[in-house]
Amino acid sequence: MCRWLAYLGPAIPIEDVVVRPDHSLIDQSLLARDLFLPGNPMASQFRDRAFPTNGDGFGLAWHGRNGTLGQYRQTTPAWDSQNLRHLASQIESDCFLAHVRAAPGGTISEQNCHPFVHGGWMFQHNGEVGGFSRLKRELTMEVDPELYPYIQGNGDTEVCFFLALSYGLAGDPVAALTRMVHRVERARSELGVAEPFRATMCASDGTRLVVLRWLSPGASGAVAPSLFTSRGGAELRTVDGLDDRLADDAHLIVSEPLELHWSRRTWEEVPAGTIGVIERGGEASFAPIPPPADSRG
Amino acid sequence: MCRWLAYLGPAIPIEDVVVRPDHSLIDQSLLARDLFLPGNPMASQFRDRAFPTNGDGFGLAWHGRNGTLGQYRQTTPAWDSQNLRHLASQIESDCFLAHVRAAPGGTISEQNCHPFVHGGWMFQHNGEVGGFSRLKRELTMEVDPELYPYIQGNGDTEVCFFLALSYGLAGDPVAALTRMVHRVERARSELGVAEPFRATMCASDGTRLVVLRWLSPGASGAVAPSLFTSRGGAELRTVDGLDDRLADDAHLIVSEPLELHWSRRTWEEVPAGTIGVIERGGEASFAPIPPPADSRG
Amino acid sequence: MCRWLAYLGPAIPIEDVVVRPDHSLIDQSLLARDLFLPGNPMASQFRDRAFPTNGDGFGLAWHGRNGTLGQYRQTTPAWDSQNLRHLASQIESDCFLAHVRAAPGGTISEQNCHPFVHGGWMFQHNGEVGGFSRLKRELTMEVDPELYPYIQGNGDTEVCFFLALSYGLAGDPVAALTRMVHRVERARSELGVAEPFRATMCASDGTRLVVLRWLSPGASGAVAPSLFTSRGGAELRTVDGLDDRLADDAHLIVSEPLELHWSRRTWEEVPAGTIGVIERGGEASFAPIPPPADSRG
Amino acid sequence: MCRWLAYLGPAIPIEDVVVRPDHSLIDQSLLARDLFLPGNPMASQFRDRAFPTNGDGFGLAWHGRNGTLGQYRQTTPAWDSQNLRHLASQIESDCFLAHVRAAPGGTISEQNCHPFVHGGWMFQHNGEVGGFSRLKRELTMEVDPELYPYIQGNGDTEVCFFLALSYGLAGDPVAALTRMVHRVERARSELGVAEPFRATMCASDGTRLVVLRWLSPGASGAVAPSLFTSRGGAELRTVDGLDDRLADDAHLIVSEPLELHWSRRTWEEVPAGTIGVIERGGEASFAPIPPPADSRG
Repeated sequence: MCRWLAYLGPAIPIEDVVVRPDHSLIDQSLLARDLFLPGNPMASQFRDRAFPTNGDGFGLAWHGRNGTLGQYRQTTPAWDSQNLRHLASQIESDCFLAHVRAAPGGTISEQNCHPFVHGGWMFQHNGEVGGFSRLKRELTMEVDPELYPYIQGNGDTEVCFFLALSYGLAGDPVAALTRMVHRVERARSELGVAEPFRATMCASDGTRLVVLRWLSPGASGAVAPSLFTSRGGAELRTVDGLDDRLADDAHLIVSEPLELHWSRRTWEEVPAGTIGVIERGGEASFAPIPPPADSRG
Repeated sequence: MCRWLAYLGPAIPIEDVVVRPDHSLIDQSLLARDLFLPGNPMASQFRDRAFPTNGDGFGLAWHGRNGTLGQYRQTTPAWDSQNLRHLASQIESDCFLAHVRAAPGGTISEQNCHPFVHGGWMFQHNGEVGGFSRLKRELTMEVDPELYPYIQGNGDTEVCFFLALSYGLAGDPVAALTRMVHRVERARSELGVAEPFRATMCASDGTRLVVLRWLSPGASGAVAPSLFTSRGGAELRTVDGLDDRLADDAHLIVSEPLELHWSRRTWEEVPAGTIGVIERGGEASFAPIPPPADSRG
Repeated sequence: MCRWLAYLGPAIPIEDVVVRPDHSLIDQSLLARDLFLPGNPMASQFRDRAFPTNGDGFGLAWHGRNGTLGQYRQTTPAWDSQNLRHLASQIESDCFLAHVRAAPGGTISEQNCHPFVHGGWMFQHNGEVGGFSRLKRELTMEVDPELYPYIQGNGDTEVCFFLALSYGLAGDPVAALTRMVHRVERARSELGVAEPFRATMCASDGTRLVVLRWLSPGASGAVAPSLFTSRGGAELRTVDGLDDRLADDAHLIVSEPLELHWSRRTWEEVPAGTIGVIERGGEASFAPIPPPADSRG
Repeated sequence: MCRWLAYLGPAIPIEDVVVRPDHSLIDQSLLARDLFLPGNPMASQFRDRAFPTNGDGFGLAWHGRNGTLGQYRQTTPAWDSQNLRHLASQIESDCFLAHVRAAPGGTISEQNCHPFVHGGWMFQHNGEVGGFSRLKRELTMEVDPELYPYIQGNGDTEVCFFLALSYGLAGDPVAALTRMVHRVERARSELGVAEPFRATMCASDGTRLVVLRWLSPGASGAVAPSLFTSRGGAELRTVDGLDDRLADDAHLIVSEPLELHWSRRTWEEVPAGTIGVIERGGEASFAPIPPPADSRG
């Protein structure tokens, strides 16, 4: 269980959405409240494994100077990082991703922190490739051998990212991400993995956001990780009790609303099983991801 | 809000109490459950400031080789530390302290992690010296000038420890700790600090545990941090569903019971406003700390 | 032995002087070459204590968004930090300080990393207050009680900075820094400390650099830490074999020239025992620091 | 360029060889002096790439409680770690490995720090698989698929270790390590890699040390990394000016002698191109590694 956000719009200081809202990503690193919402099917797991803390690292990636991508990752918690607060206050960007990580049983390293950056793209994920240790070798071997040496961490997300890069993320991101989802599902099917592939993912080249929400078909009892968009012009309640107003042409995609007390007028849920591209100045629209076929890969 | 434990008894691997119980200190670092217990007056603060995560560092100090004290401290969370698990599995000791830190607004550094070690004594604390920034200069100046240069961190606990060392902790620990409590209360009183001094503290020279639980008199609405002892021979439920048995002559003092489902037959609360010395092979007994007087210090 | 640089001039990416030169601050973190220069009186100590590695942390402070000061500090070495390279590539500033730390026997913490930032000023130091552990209490007590709680680390530099702040750094920086130097010397004299006060220091409010180079009078056998300025329009050899040209109105102050093979036409030594203010668009000029008097403080 | 040591003999505190000698592994982390010895062919590279600092992490692995292996790894430098000094002072072992890492261009993570531990074996390396980024995919695919998911880092050493495990390290360590060397050489040959495979490696199950020193045949201008053994009963000069005496039946294998002024009577060089097994109470003897054949693998 991780938490992330992505922003596209007029350039703003990163702190405006990462630090200032009263349930900002920093607050979510300490305590992801969505788990406590009535009716959330994960709430009952609370005392077991689905813990609400995202304290195993954080990261930022942003569309920066001369159109290049900046990246900052750290293995310590977001909530107690003075560096994060300073950087989020100083760095302005018109397109950025931010992520706080929970890694129960996983490996703690900067290389495993999201967002990943390669080949002019940023990438982040919340969820998991179920049974990844059994799928890892097959999926990793599918990565383009030219790209293979650039894999630095050991987790599922980076393999998904490099699969998408191998499948032509830069040329047709929706097709590449869809093919990656299908490839993971085929591996699950062939290797008899019961644990579902659960994912909200965001890829960006700094000019647009490509976003998907997925849950393996037939995964009874499991839910897709939550994902919300906010409407341009929305007002966000800050820790200081103010209401910050998002620009009319801004897009914000989040794992969990950035407000402690949020409204469905401000935050709209992204349907599970869909993928969408959000262009600068355009509208967010999500279309169904085709179901995986046995023969597809 | 931190969490700690202290052990005195036959030598055991540190993991037996720090890692194995089903609500071990590692589990408490992720989620201190005591806050959720019905009737706990802090539970209502849950969504505000009294967060249940102790992820700002951890530390171990132990009675070790040739009677010297070992120390290990780290600023990253206990729950995701492979090093902590390995060390706790390898190191055996007949007397040790362990601590997980929550430092809202505080400074993250190894030097601020508990347990502190100086002059043959280990020391740890849960709670806070209310209004410490206003008291810090006066209390620090009270430290013996010979000891002053050895203060390494910038927090309230280390100043309390060095005050106790200055007051003769090694000679008469109960008197020294009592004088320290009174000195802090005098400073609060003289400087008009309303926020209470809330503390559970443990000092040890490796042969005995000196333990106190304190709340400033007249602190309406505040509670002393929780503190429990376990009886020798108690059985502790482990994460593997086993029941580990504590030796008959072992003592365990904890901020919060080490079991998710605990019983008052196994865990006994230490009364607030008391101090006690637990000798090897002896019984735990706690006596009231005299109330501070205006003229005392 | 640390190494630092300070820049004032047209806004540039921080990497232009921190990363790109062939003996950049990153290269100096690994191996400060100045120690190997013929005639350097410290070279003979090479196998003993004056080690050439500055791997105990690094930091950046810069004049940033809306005139505020940014700060980034880390305890790990500069040479292996991907974060440092990314940040230095993305952040542009018209006035910044950068520091790599060597702390033999000192405390490793972010709070001890330079540059320090408080009250709208940045501050960094190379050298040491000799015998600091004996002077620390007296010098710390001299800090304005209102400022005292903001001291976060435990080293000599931060105390010097807070003394200067207490003496009115913002109003008359040359007078405040001179008074600080004299105060340290008076403490050395009164407490009979033989080890010299050796310092190159830089303070900045983002619009000017205030720089001093000092060695206690009568310190036979000791030398003041090295300090150089580069002339506007100088060309700096980069790791790629290029020659980057500094703007005509740029100022660069460094512990050690940023080129492996440097020339006195590009780099001019700052005389020991002097202090100077470098204004934007102005010239660097250094005037002698008056010798300390017994009655002064 | 890294530095390591391995010890087998009567149980001693780890500090006896890691901390106390006057050119201990801690001293070598700051400045590996062997590079400065007259006649060392690497000395001329000093100002370029073969830097003398091993500050990119350190690690310990030891034969510990109940015959299990302990492990401690950290990405920060050995020289400034209080934790390392405390642990080395408290932990006693009759067989342990210790390593300080230099990773120019490599990835900094605990998972890349040596010694690696898996399947009851510890493993460490100094040197490099030349052209590893081109060989990585092929060599990694050769790892037993059952073992593959346990690879945690992204460096060459761990792949060599897992190849040796795949080849039956536990059953016949000399054969498994030889086959691994040959497999790497075959990959170099088939993929046309000119950069040599340079290695000193040590594997241990806690009861014996298996050690090799290797340089690819025909690597003109390159040298095998240095490797020395000390004779039982040797006296080691300490930082305190004392002479510690190794037990008669102790074995010490090191990248570089642990004394600033060392003698060939105390330290004997291991010939390049050899492999040996050192049993408890036995003698160190090294036999040539057969040259790789085109058809072997």
